Amino acid sequence: MPQYAIGLDYGTNSCRSLLVDLSDGTELGSTVFDYPSGELGILTDPKDPNLARQNPQDYLDGLECIIRGALAEAASVRPDFCPSEVIGIGVDTTGSTPIPVDESGTPLGLKPEFSDNLAAMVWLWKDHTAHAEAKEITEKAAQMRPQYLAKCGGIYSSEWWWAKILHLKRTSPDVFDAAYSFVEHCDYIPAVLAGNTDPRSLRRGICAAGHKAMYSDAWGGLPDEEFLETLDPALAQLRERLFDAAVSAGEKAGELCEEWAQKTGLSEGTAISVGAFDCHMGAVACGVKEGTLTKILGTSTCDITVSPVDRELADVPGLCGIVNDSVLPGHFGIEAGQSAVGDIFLWFVNHLVPESYGSSPEEKFTNMEKAMSQEKPGSGGLLALDWNNGNRTILVDPRLSGLLLGQTLHTQAHEIYRAYIEATAFGALTIIRRMEEYGININEVITTGGLAVKNATLMQIYADILGLPLKVATSDQTCALGAALFGAASSGKVTLAEAQDKCAKVRDLVYYPIPENQEVYARLYALYLELHDAFGTDKWDGQLNHVMKELIGIRETQR
Amino acid sequence: MPQYAIGLDYGTNSCRSLLVDLSDGTELGSTVFDYPSGELGILTDPKDPNLARQNPQDYLDGLECIIRGALAEAASVRPDFCPSEVIGIGVDTTGSTPIPVDESGTPLGLKPEFSDNLAAMVWLWKDHTAHAEAKEITEKAAQMRPQYLAKCGGIYSSEWWWAKILHLKRTSPDVFDAAYSFVEHCDYIPAVLAGNTDPRSLRRGICAAGHKAMYSDAWGGLPDEEFLETLDPALAQLRERLFDAAVSAGEKAGELCEEWAQKTGLSEGTAISVGAFDCHMGAVACGVKEGTLTKILGTSTCDITVSPVDRELADVPGLCGIVNDSVLPGHFGIEAGQSAVGDIFLWFVNHLVPESYGSSPEEKFTNMEKAMSQEKPGSGGLLALDWNNGNRTILVDPRLSGLLLGQTLHTQAHEIYRAYIEATAFGALTIIRRMEEYGININEVITTGGLAVKNATLMQIYADILGLPLKVATSDQTCALGAALFGAASSGKVTLAEAQDKCAKVRDLVYYPIPENQEVYARLYALYLELHDAFGTDKWDGQLNHVMKELIGIRETQR
Repeated sequence: MPQYAIGLDYGTNSCRSLLVDLSDGTELGSTVFDYPSGELGILTDPKDPNLARQNPQDYLDGLECIIRGALAEAASVRPDFCPSEVIGIGVDTTGSTPIPVDESGTPLGLKPEFSDNLAAMVWLWKDHTAHAEAKEITEKAAQMRPQYLAKCGGIYSSEWWWAKILHLKRTSPDVFDAAYSFVEHCDYIPAVLAGNTDPRSLRRGICAAGHKAMYSDAWGGLPDEEFLETLDPALAQLRERLFDAAVSAGEKAGELCEEWAQKTGLSEGTAISVGAFDCHMGAVACGVKEGTLTKILGTSTCDITVSPVDRELADVPGLCGIVNDSVLPGHFGIEAGQSAVGDIFLWFVNHLVPESYGSSPEEKFTNMEKAMSQEKPGSGGLLALDWNNGNRTILVDPRLSGLLLGQTLHTQAHEIYRAYIEATAFGALTIIRRMEEYGININEVITTGGLAVKNATLMQIYADILGLPLKVATSDQTCALGAALFGAASSGKVTLAEAQDKCAKVRDLVYYPIPENQEVYARLYALYLELHDAFGTDKWDGQLNHVMKELIGIRETQR
Repeated sequence: MPQYAIGLDYGTNSCRSLLVDLSDGTELGSTVFDYPSGELGILTDPKDPNLARQNPQDYLDGLECIIRGALAEAASVRPDFCPSEVIGIGVDTTGSTPIPVDESGTPLGLKPEFSDNLAAMVWLWKDHTAHAEAKEITEKAAQMRPQYLAKCGGIYSSEWWWAKILHLKRTSPDVFDAAYSFVEHCDYIPAVLAGNTDPRSLRRGICAAGHKAMYSDAWGGLPDEEFLETLDPALAQLRERLFDAAVSAGEKAGELCEEWAQKTGLSEGTAISVGAFDCHMGAVACGVKEGTLTKILGTSTCDITVSPVDRELADVPGLCGIVNDSVLPGHFGIEAGQSAVGDIFLWFVNHLVPESYGSSPEEKFTNMEKAMSQEKPGSGGLLALDWNNGNRTILVDPRLSGLLLGQTLHTQAHEIYRAYIEATAFGALTIIRRMEEYGININEVITTGGLAVKNATLMQIYADILGLPLKVATSDQTCALGAALFGAASSGKVTLAEAQDKCAKVRDLVYYPIPENQEVYARLYALYLELHDAFGTDKWDGQLNHVMKELIGIRETQR
């Protein structure tokens, strides 16, 4: 009898479903729902570029739409398909994306009295309004509870749970007071489907809790009251209205309730997995394992690898998180990421590439790639830092910015585009080097995301700079696929390992490093690292007056 | 009886004439001749972006055309004008622009056997092929003859006389051997008009010789043979085929010969001034005097001021030249400059500004200025270095490059344009600060050139950053006007001071610094200086990790 699972992937601008045949990973149906609110689904504030919120109603409207859509498509592709053969539902979302909720678990943003209040909405992962609070949490934890910081890279981020909640308390105390509790987006959707959004009893995922809320069994769950008290007494009081336990994705969050069975067309009682973050589930669908780094190459990146729990693992400064069971059972999930990759290219093409390269962004990208492919590494004489949106790993500092160096009176747009691609690859290499420094060795990189599939020039540059073979996951929807695999596991009818083994595949095309390019990039990376340390750390004391001259020297050699 | 003078201004891409009524500076006639050879008059080599040469035939063709044109226009504007009332001819050119010549003073580039040889052509000021030779001259002079360097800022430039001749000797010995001597462009044109191009007897100007050829009465003229011998024995042998004496512009180079009287329509015997560089003569037409800095704002800038010879003046590191009588009689002429200003804006608009700002470069500039004028200083969060073409003053280093810092995912082209304008103004301020450090005080800046007249936004930013009133010369052709004033002086019928007094005027519109902008710019300049010293000198040992954070802080305050 056939077995299917459905994965629901909540991204930054839209959500999508993927219905998968668990025997071989065949994808039978998928539907995308663009969030209708705000700009591309994001509620913004023209006065504050750090602010990024979402309307919870978009999530609910999308939920119904994407499940129905996937089922309809599957039925049309495979006429004997039956919704009762869907054994499990998995959910992944962005994060940390906390939602203020009332005592029943209803998001405040759904309530009429808060419908115009940005503070009551969902605080999207990329909201950076809480940078001052993140700094304060880092400083106080470093003094009082260094163990909390050790598992999240030594620096608490403005993108994370406690910083956002503290900022809400300080800037919108009325909303904070109206919030009985807070729920991560990835925990909220499974709770809705299961028909129980009670914040005291809905099941919380270890992925979000461990990576973003400083949750660990090692210290009894969430940070202790004494610590929270030093941040704000209200946080200490909030603690007991949050949660005591967090569990792994793949465990059952509940079963599909009657209401949502009717709304979606799935069978009542279908198993629902505990939720997790998109890239964590995506990593499983890419085939993450020890020694393999999976890299979701999108507007930003998320880099995931795992290390067996029975191997000793040091705390790694600058990595966003090391959390037991957050990716694969029996493994530490290790997460890193770059704050902007595709976003830098999009910014550049939209704001600084003239029409001589084409009339649409797509044409401009294509023609820049063409022009670039005629030229050798280093021949543009340029070097950039990939910090236009700050640096997530390894500096964990949103208050950094972009840098471009080496311009002459002849520098052309495609040369700058290449420099930005290279900069993001240097950023990626810096993450891998940090992992390896702490004993997490990487032998191959499996990529997924739009850039991995569409941009062969970028992929070759990455292989040359990383010095590793670069593979591409077969699925175009690895996050949704991963969610489906976790959904399947939550049914108890298959294990996650079995599902991964059958459905997580890579394509035949592999990008291998080209030795002569590697040599040039090794010299450029040495210069990148100097700029990285000079502008990004307070531990640097070197000289920079050779940087421009070396770039000119490399340019002259490579032309 | 009316008195007129004609100035001939040889620029980078064209030459022009200006016929002036000496009673009040009224401009009666002007003609421009675009050099027909190469790209916009410049002979280039696709393999070497440092190479920039010119065809001497263009100079001769232009000479006839622009004098005839100015006379014809003057006759049509003022019917009673008579060419015999032109009392003097002045000539300015770019420099150091040496011409290899044969024993009769004929440029080798005019001879059929060399017509295809770039090395035999005129070596335009912006030819940077001789950077290795410039470095060698700097090093050897520092050891053997530090006094030579002291008057040209401590570093000999690849744009200058000896570096170019030495590079020619090393890379094209056949051309070097065929060259009996070398003549600066500004000395060659007066010699042609006077009918005597014999390199042994034509009069050489102190401006070119003193600023570029390390000529000074203090050490008996050109550098001594022993020093030249260490560079190359051939240079030591060349020395006696060059010149022993150099004299000031305003002295007579000769009188118009019959041949050129016939070719041009001027009267035989008209006085011809000794030549000088364009910006030196332009400074006089701007009204340069003690305490006044004149700034020619074009593709690059040339900054000139003067200091009375009876006041003691230290050697100033990094200034291109301090030469007795090179600008005004009885004064040291003090020269500085920026390697690229308008050129940076042109590069940016041509390569990186999308059509959303307009369809032509002019439209793009206008719309970027409009967008920029809505925003306060610092609100873009950007900081740039103005080194896309290296740094002339105060670092004297062509092997530097551009830098732009502070980009986010929202940075727009007009914000970057503003950052580049600011960077060039910071570069200008660095020059003034260096002068003041050595006792050359500046109270006002008089500007001229296309940017000064057309770009009010730029002018206000400059006033805010320099903290000085910015005036604009009345004439649009200050170099040609200055040449005319020197031509007049060479006749002995008026003094240079009288001619300057009557004809060098400024416009009513003055740009004054706005205090609140000055405050912000003082903070940005402190950051600029740190980048300047970090990337441009080997004497810096600071920290840069605060730079991006301060820029973000300023941006937040200013928005």
